[in-house]
Amino acid sequence: MSGKQGAIVPQPFTDLARLSLNQATTQRWSLREAVDGCVRAGIPSISLWRDKIADVGLAAAVRIVRDAGLHVSSVCRGGMFPAATAAERQARIEDNQRAIDQAAALEADALVLVCGAAPDRDIAAARAMVADGIAQLIPYAAEHGVRLGIEPLHPMFAGDRSVITTLGEANVLAERFDSSVVGVIIDAYHIWWDPDVYTQIARARGRTLGFHVSDWIMPLPDMLRGRGMIGDGVIELRAIRSAVDAIGYNGPIEVEIFNQAIWDSPGDEVLALMCARYLECV
Amino acid sequence: MSGKQGAIVPQPFTDLARLSLNQATTQRWSLREAVDGCVRAGIPSISLWRDKIADVGLAAAVRIVRDAGLHVSSVCRGGMFPAATAAERQARIEDNQRAIDQAAALEADALVLVCGAAPDRDIAAARAMVADGIAQLIPYAAEHGVRLGIEPLHPMFAGDRSVITTLGEANVLAERFDSSVVGVIIDAYHIWWDPDVYTQIARARGRTLGFHVSDWIMPLPDMLRGRGMIGDGVIELRAIRSAVDAIGYNGPIEVEIFNQAIWDSPGDEVLALMCARYLECV
Repeated sequence: MSGKQGAIVPQPFTDLARLSLNQATTQRWSLREAVDGCVRAGIPSISLWRDKIADVGLAAAVRIVRDAGLHVSSVCRGGMFPAATAAERQARIEDNQRAIDQAAALEADALVLVCGAAPDRDIAAARAMVADGIAQLIPYAAEHGVRLGIEPLHPMFAGDRSVITTLGEANVLAERFDSSVVGVIIDAYHIWWDPDVYTQIARARGRTLGFHVSDWIMPLPDMLRGRGMIGDGVIELRAIRSAVDAIGYNGPIEVEIFNQAIWDSPGDEVLALMCARYLECV
Repeated sequence: MSGKQGAIVPQPFTDLARLSLNQATTQRWSLREAVDGCVRAGIPSISLWRDKIADVGLAAAVRIVRDAGLHVSSVCRGGMFPAATAAERQARIEDNQRAIDQAAALEADALVLVCGAAPDRDIAAARAMVADGIAQLIPYAAEHGVRLGIEPLHPMFAGDRSVITTLGEANVLAERFDSSVVGVIIDAYHIWWDPDVYTQIARARGRTLGFHVSDWIMPLPDMLRGRGMIGDGVIELRAIRSAVDAIGYNGPIEVEIFNQAIWDSPGDEVLALMCARYLECV
């Protein structure tokens, strides 16, 4: 209809080889429960959150994931660079270094960076603090073999979570750094509305470190916990996935759904639905 | 700090000459109550909503506004062009023509266009329907001397209210048409997060038909009814106003606040606070 796919007709997946469970989707499960759930469902990859890693300890987390034979698509999350004082900004760099340690130990494809918001009204100054923070983090990340994925968040989070609001802005930022260390994370929920989305996906070729999917449902039940199960909303997931395929990204596709109703459902049922919808809609 | 103002230091206003009350701010007031409130507060302009006009009838609305000596900065709203069938799209064109009749009778500076959302998942097709709808409306608007202001909405409304989500996109769209008929509306709430905001304001020179202000408060109490009183949030209102000044826009500045708590407050108190904050923050 829209011509955005050119001559390519996107094909559905026929297996779960690229599927990854982002732990945010099964908020009530511990790390071990989420790993076991993936094994039962035949999901080969998982994205781990730092609070869940902390609950069991990093060494145990590594052992649990390895024993299960799972691949770690990402660790969530680093970032949050802007702060009112230099001391606080330095403390955040150090926290990001701990996140890098975790991503390295887990052999994760990337550490996801949610870049943070302005400590005051000055969004341009906050953007500069984000760039400075990433620059400071790079030597440590390179030394530990961890790639940093800048994830632009939906503009509705510009006030409290991320001054990096578009894939275009994330691309411009990432291009300032060595692509062997810094790239971008493409999350359909955050970028689907953007008139430049396909141009910017194309521009992210060679720098895309992750691809996340969920859906935009209406009315949105909640800004933070209101993402929809894939297939339940208005995002053209297969079109976006096809564009991400077209730039050569062939890594894991994380399903990351913050949704209270999904969190309140039995985890195995959520994973079963998620697998079915992944094959049907992504 | 951010350099976005160049050498210009924005100055506060010393009077209310450019202030306009958008009726959405005083949702519980009838058209006559809002007009009377403006007169009491010394606010010279008002923006009228079509449901409030309909409550009294167009002829009475015109008389009430003229008798009070108020200027009408805009009529809210036309638009909502995309629809699943050609018949429904045509019905919407006809509804827009009625809105043009109202804007003409009230001698409004502009009819605000909230462009509408996709009837299905195809956002590119919906954007084409918006362009087609505006093109269809132009002869009638020109004939009646009414200018059409494309208002980009915040991307959080892309699913249900507007597929036009950035000022950049509104500019590109407006530039397809005669600038004597089609322009853009700059609303700080919708665009403040955009890394290109100052570039796109500059690009809107000669096409800006209105400037709206409110504020982004956190946590956002509600997506639709959660705008803040100017000065209560994180938007750099004076910086944005100064950029709008710099492109030569010297028309009314509408305060448009959808907020349940403000609606539940006495209207005269809301207007008094709004006037004080306008002088302090805009």
